[in-house]
This record gives sequence, C-alpha cells and structure tokens, in this order.
Amino acid sequence: MIEQEKAITYAKNSQPNSLDELISFLRIPTISSLPENKQDIQVAAEWLSERLLGLGFDSVSIYPTDGLPIVYADYLKVGHDAPTILVYGHYDVQPVDPIDEWLNEPFVPDIRGENIFARGATDMKAQLIGFLNAAEAIIKTSELPVNLKFMLEGEEEVGSSNLEAFIVANKDLLKCDFCLNLDAGILAEEVPSIQYGLRGLIYFEIRIQGPEVDLHSGKFGGAIENPALILCELIAGMRDSNKQITLPNFYDNVRPLSQEERDNFAKLPLTDAWWLDQTGAKALREGAAYTPTERATVRPTLDVNGFLSGFTGVGSKTVLPAKAMAKISMRLVPDQDPEQIIRSLENYFKENMPPTVSYELEIMSGSKPSIVERDSEAVQVASRALEAVWNKKPLFARDGGSVPVVGLIQKLLGVDSLLFGFGLPDDNPHAPNEKQHLPTFYRGIETYIRFLFGFDH
Amino acid sequence: MIEQEKAITYAKNSQPNSLDELISFLRIPTISSLPENKQDIQVAAEWLSERLLGLGFDSVSIYPTDGLPIVYADYLKVGHDAPTILVYGHYDVQPVDPIDEWLNEPFVPDIRGENIFARGATDMKAQLIGFLNAAEAIIKTSELPVNLKFMLEGEEEVGSSNLEAFIVANKDLLKCDFCLNLDAGILAEEVPSIQYGLRGLIYFEIRIQGPEVDLHSGKFGGAIENPALILCELIAGMRDSNKQITLPNFYDNVRPLSQEERDNFAKLPLTDAWWLDQTGAKALREGAAYTPTERATVRPTLDVNGFLSGFTGVGSKTVLPAKAMAKISMRLVPDQDPEQIIRSLENYFKENMPPTVSYELEIMSGSKPSIVERDSEAVQVASRALEAVWNKKPLFARDGGSVPVVGLIQKLLGVDSLLFGFGLPDDNPHAPNEKQHLPTFYRGIETYIRFLFGFDH
Repeated sequence: MIEQEKAITYAKNSQPNSLDELISFLRIPTISSLPENKQDIQVAAEWLSERLLGLGFDSVSIYPTDGLPIVYADYLKVGHDAPTILVYGHYDVQPVDPIDEWLNEPFVPDIRGENIFARGATDMKAQLIGFLNAAEAIIKTSELPVNLKFMLEGEEEVGSSNLEAFIVANKDLLKCDFCLNLDAGILAEEVPSIQYGLRGLIYFEIRIQGPEVDLHSGKFGGAIENPALILCELIAGMRDSNKQITLPNFYDNVRPLSQEERDNFAKLPLTDAWWLDQTGAKALREGAAYTPTERATVRPTLDVNGFLSGFTGVGSKTVLPAKAMAKISMRLVPDQDPEQIIRSLENYFKENMPPTVSYELEIMSGSKPSIVERDSEAVQVASRALEAVWNKKPLFARDGGSVPVVGLIQKLLGVDSLLFGFGLPDDNPHAPNEKQHLPTFYRGIETYIRFLFGFDH
Repeated sequence: MIEQEKAITYAKNSQPNSLDELISFLRIPTISSLPENKQDIQVAAEWLSERLLGLGFDSVSIYPTDGLPIVYADYLKVGHDAPTILVYGHYDVQPVDPIDEWLNEPFVPDIRGENIFARGATDMKAQLIGFLNAAEAIIKTSELPVNLKFMLEGEEEVGSSNLEAFIVANKDLLKCDFCLNLDAGILAEEVPSIQYGLRGLIYFEIRIQGPEVDLHSGKFGGAIENPALILCELIAGMRDSNKQITLPNFYDNVRPLSQEERDNFAKLPLTDAWWLDQTGAKALREGAAYTPTERATVRPTLDVNGFLSGFTGVGSKTVLPAKAMAKISMRLVPDQDPEQIIRSLENYFKENMPPTVSYELEIMSGSKPSIVERDSEAVQVASRALEAVWNKKPLFARDGGSVPVVGLIQKLLGVDSLLFGFGLPDDNPHAPNEKQHLPTFYRGIETYIRFLFGFDH
C-alpha cells in the first residue's frame, strides 16, 4: 500500500494548510436560521464548489432549493468496479446565542491549547474540511480507490426541509452503494468508536395566548388566567415524579434492549463521573432504571429547549403576560413512530388546554430513530481504519442525537448511512464555545484516507 | 364658595395648558429600572421642583438617596387650623417592553380620540399633573384651604427601596394629618369610585442552573436534567387543579369577606362581560367560588410575570439549556403576612428542588396588604367631590394592586392614605399602549379642586 502511505505523508505535511483552510471556512457565518446570513450561505456554497472543482470533481453545481442551496459534485473516474459512496455533509451552523457566554467571537476562530473555537467547528465544518483534505491527499499522490458523490446541504440545522425534494428529483444522480455521513464523532480523544444507532426527534413550539395584551398583575391577576402558568402546568403534566413521560402509549413501541447490548454500553468509557465532568451538572439522577449513557442514547426524552413569557429583563415588572411560548423536543428510539407520538401530543394539548386561553401547536420537525447494520462492509472498513490510526479496536455505540437525513436517505435511496466523523463529546456543539480538537482533526484525516483505501480490493 | 367656582373656571380655561404640560412631562423617559435613564430621572425631578417653586411652594428640594432622588416641597402658609396633607406621587415609569406592540413611540405622546398614549400616562404622570393644575387653579385665584406637603419619588416602579430611609430621616418634615396618594383610578369613565383596600405583594425571581453551559439535547438529553422542565414542575407544583395555591398555610390568615362586602362588590359594574372586554381574554374561569372581581381584588394570587430559558428565537435549536429563570409574584390580602409566606416559599423550593440542579431564590419585594377607614373625613370629602363632578355617588371598591408606600407611611408616620386618582382600568398601565383618558383627566382636576375646598370649614 505504497499509495496509502504517500497520501498519509502528504496529509501530515499539509497539516498547516488544512488548518488554514478550516479557519477560512469557519469565518463564514453560515447560520441557516437567520435570514440575514443568507448571503453567507451562498458564499460557503461557492467556496465548497471551488474547492471540489480544484480537486478535479465533475458536475459541480449549486442547486437552488425553496430554501438554501445544496452543493453537488462527483468523482466517478474510478470505474464501475469500485464502490460509489455518497458523502453527506452540511455547511450550515447553529445560531450563536447566548453570545455573551463565548470567550471569542463565534466566527473569528481562536486556537487555545489543542482546540480551535468557533461556531460550526465540530458540527461539522472540521469534519467536512477533514474529508476534503483526505481526498486531496489521495488525488494529489495517486488515485481515489472509490467513486465519490458529494451532497452538501445548508439547512441541516433548520430541519433539512428541502433535502427530500432534492433527493426525490435527483435519485439517479445520487445513486450509490452507501452513504458516508460525516456529521459524527468519537467517544473520546483516545476512544475511537463507531455509532450504529441514532435517536429520532420531534421538535415543536407551543404558543399560548391569555389576554390580548400584557396586563397589570395587580389589576387583573386572579380574574384572568396567566398563560405562563398554564404552560408550566401543561409541560409539567407531561412527566411524572419518576421522570417518566406520561403521554399515552409513549413507551409502547420502545424496542427492549438486549442484555448483550447493555453489557456493551457498560464497557463504554461513559462513567457517571464522565457525564458530570462533561456537563458540569451538579448531580445525576439516582435510582433510575437506566444508566446515564442509556438515558442519553437509547432511551426517549422530553426536553424544554426554550421558554419565553412576559418580562425577562433586570428587575421586576408586575405584568400578567399576554403570551407564553415554549420550544420542546422529544428524542425517540427504535421503534417509536414520530407520527403516532405527534398525534398523542396534539391530543394532549387539546384535552388539557383550559378554555381560558387559546393556543397554537407547531410541529417543527419529526424524524424516525434509526439503527445501521454493524456487520456491513462499510462498518468493517471504518473499524479497521480507526484501529490502524489509534492502535486499538473501536467501540460500538449508539448516539443520542438525531440525523434526520439518515432516515431520509434510507427511505429515498434505499441505502444505509455510515456515521463517521471526529467530533468529541465536549466540543460544545450547539452551545457557546463550540470547538474542534485539532489532534483529533488530523487523526481524522488519516482515518478517512485509510478508510477510502480500505475499499481498494 | 365663590373661590371654588373661580378656581374651577380657571382650571377649565387652562385645559390646553394642562394638556401641554402633561405632554412635556410624558416626554421625559423616566424608566427607573434602567441605568441609562438615570439622567432623565434627574431632569424630571428638576422639572417638578421648578413647577412647585413657580406655584410658591417653600422648602423645595431634590433629596438624593442611595438610588434615585425624592422631590420634597411644602405650602404651609394656610396655618395650623387647617389640615396638613402629605401628597404622595411618583414620577418614574415602567419599562416599555414589548416595544413592538406600541402604536406610537412610548415617550412621544400621541393623542388618538379622547386618549393620550404614552408610557406613564395613567401611572401616574396624568394624576400628578392633574393635581398640580388643581393647586395652581386655587393658588392663582384665591388661597389653598389646606397645608400641602409633596413627597414625589422616582423609584415606585422598582420597589420604592429608598423611600423608607427618607421617611425615617425626615419624620418631622413629613408630619401630616393624612396622606393623599394620587397613584389611583376610578372604576370606569362614568363610575366614580374610591379604593379603600389594596393587596400586598411578594415578587421574587427563581434562577435554576442545570449543566454549566447549554448542551446539545441529543447528546445529553435524558442523562442530564433540564432546568426549564424542573422550573415548570416547581411552578406547576404551587397550584392545584382547582387553581388554589398549595403553599402550606397560604390561606390561613385570609380575612373572611362579610356578606355585606360581597354584596357591595356585586354592585360594582364589573360584570363577567366587563372583565372579558377589558382584557380580551378568551374566557373566564367557570365554577370558581369567587367572582372575577373578588379574585382580582380581595383574593390572593399567584402569577408568573416572566419566564426565560434556552433558545427563544425563530426556528428550532436543539439545546438543553444551562439555565432557567422565572419572575413570580403573589398578591396578598388582609391579613396575610408577607414574611410568613416568604418563609413558606423558601421552604418550598428548598424541599422540592431536585439534587440534579442548583438554584437561587431572590425576594425582590414584599409588602403588606392594607385597608383604609371608609368613615374618615378624607374619604367623606373625596366622596362629596366626586359626587359633585359626576352627579352620582361614588362606589367603594378594593383594588387588586399593591401600593407598598401606603403600608410604609402607615408604619412610619402613623397616618392612613387616601388613594385618589383618575386612571381607568383600560388605560394599560405597565403594558404597551398605556394611556390616560383626557376627559377624565380634566374631571379629575375639578375633583381635586373640590376635594381641597372640602376641608375649608
């Protein structure tokens, strides 16, 4: 495997360039949820197109959608004998709030110690840049052992709402043997791992209206219902004192965990101390039937993601708010059905909303949980690549996050997705001070090179 | 009463000047809770001093405090035979949020129909300007029949925290027969009324901390407790399904209402339709043991005044928030003791806060409920003045709001307060589009003139 060694050497010598490129890409504020960043999204799409063109990719196009554009490019020169991999990634990022908790400007990348801090660093610009650098290293030193198709979207953080239409309209273009989804991570710096399961997601917003305008709580309090209090009561009513979700039939379709799977989870380096250390939480729940790792990866959840009502500035304002709003999400596990649970939610609010207020329930996303095959070729090749770089066998874990596109690609293209990326759990995705661990970024590049050569039969 | 008629004629001829003066005073953005408006508070204090000096008041001073200044002035030329009235008012106003619901700039007064719209219009700049115009009308045409002392503070909307020290330090200066508190209103445009009771207030902020920083709800949800969910559960736990407050012993000291008092309340023009019309609420609670009027004036309440946690912008962000905060208030009625209920609150949070989160409870204000004597001379004189202007007997009502200064003055100066002002219930105090009804403002000026002459034995 002279070619593989040449590519790895090229990549190692190119680390300063890889870092420069990552910094450039992180500087583009690609927040997909904010209309004011629409132009930045376009800039990033063009940046990626240029990069892929420079690597010799064909059919490089920025496909417009009803929302933000999708970048497509392919490299099919390897021929029909080699597998064709659809590489999925997204170039958009989460908003930056709460901005005052960042130690640097979110779009002015700052290297502190072994980490680079910026919004989108781990989720997932470093993964994208890492894979591009792996491809470059091979293309510049020999030849890709596989055919590649890139599908890079700009709306992952806002629910990938235009991806389905794009895939449906371009099924032939996207035909592949499997999808390589770079939006992923490993368990710890020294713990290489492969995720084989994901949770699904229901995300909704509930808006309650009490009086028409904010009222004086002294003049009207008591006579007029308080929408914030009602919302608290409705949210509290979804969970019992054992922290179990009380929506009817919520747990009915949860696939039981095998003892083997639970034994495997117990081997993961995710101790109680790890969970506390990673989060700074004061304590973990005691006496629960599942471990924290199981609760975060293979058990369903209910989380309030945001709540806003009334006066929230400094000091006191005796207001009876007109409105209360909460953003709420549920993570689902196999074989829970988002559609059934959405119906259950709709019923819950309908049946429990008092007549003193009106409300709107907006379902913002619903995606199925998924599990991929552990004995597929892609998983085996990835496992060997990780082992070669880390000098240890990877662990197999399920992840608590949701990657709706995995379900979408399975449904529309009929292929599984391998989740394969190099974020670390303490990289603060979606939070202030998001980062990427740079030594892991460089190891990731080498792993991607070995992975691609793994298909060179 | 030639003098009284002269003064009333003067006031009627001066209505355009009174309105101009109100507009000028409303233009000063005296938001006491915002540090950036500190200079405006000073401007307003100087404005009032100049005005009182111009009327021939003595001892006009702007007293500095540890917070915002207090304006004092007196007019004691009438002599010892006449009563001395301490006139209490405040020249500060509430913040303007939510600003986008205002139809005009809050500090650019706008007259639409019979109303003038501006922050502070009804609460309580129009009452203050109205009384000053009444005093002017008398002083310019004859002589005040009573001695007056003005005490005008700039911190009523932030809890009057420096008023107690001022009163304690100036007890002799403030000596009086009773306090006339202008921070009040009547029941409706054609329903003159006198408030003889007020609710007390406990206002607190509860801040819950879960993880150290916002986390990804997919990676950590389930393992790590959600502080917003905990806060919802704690708030919901303070009220039962009958909307009764469940803090231990909360209702123990509530003074039973006499049947006479309830019959009197039933005569007030505060029908269910009125409550709905004034608030735009969808419905009133059915089957409750008390009427909406009783619930809003003589029964204690629990209200969430503000709630903030996590991501509250447009769209979805799958965040497990680090923090959740709520501002909560309780209105108290005679003879509930704020100190005892604050202890009960502290116990509630201590006993029910799960070990997975930490918290801070900040008590921001606590004031006693109060009832003033209905057969005192001040109330009788006020009643006759209202009857003369409106050609009907006023109704006697209790108000659901809280005027902490009433309790403070009773405690420190040993005198009752007569609440006597001309706001209307739909004037939107503390809310967007606050206003003052101008015909009622002018009637108020005449009523104040008749009130002052009522002491001319």
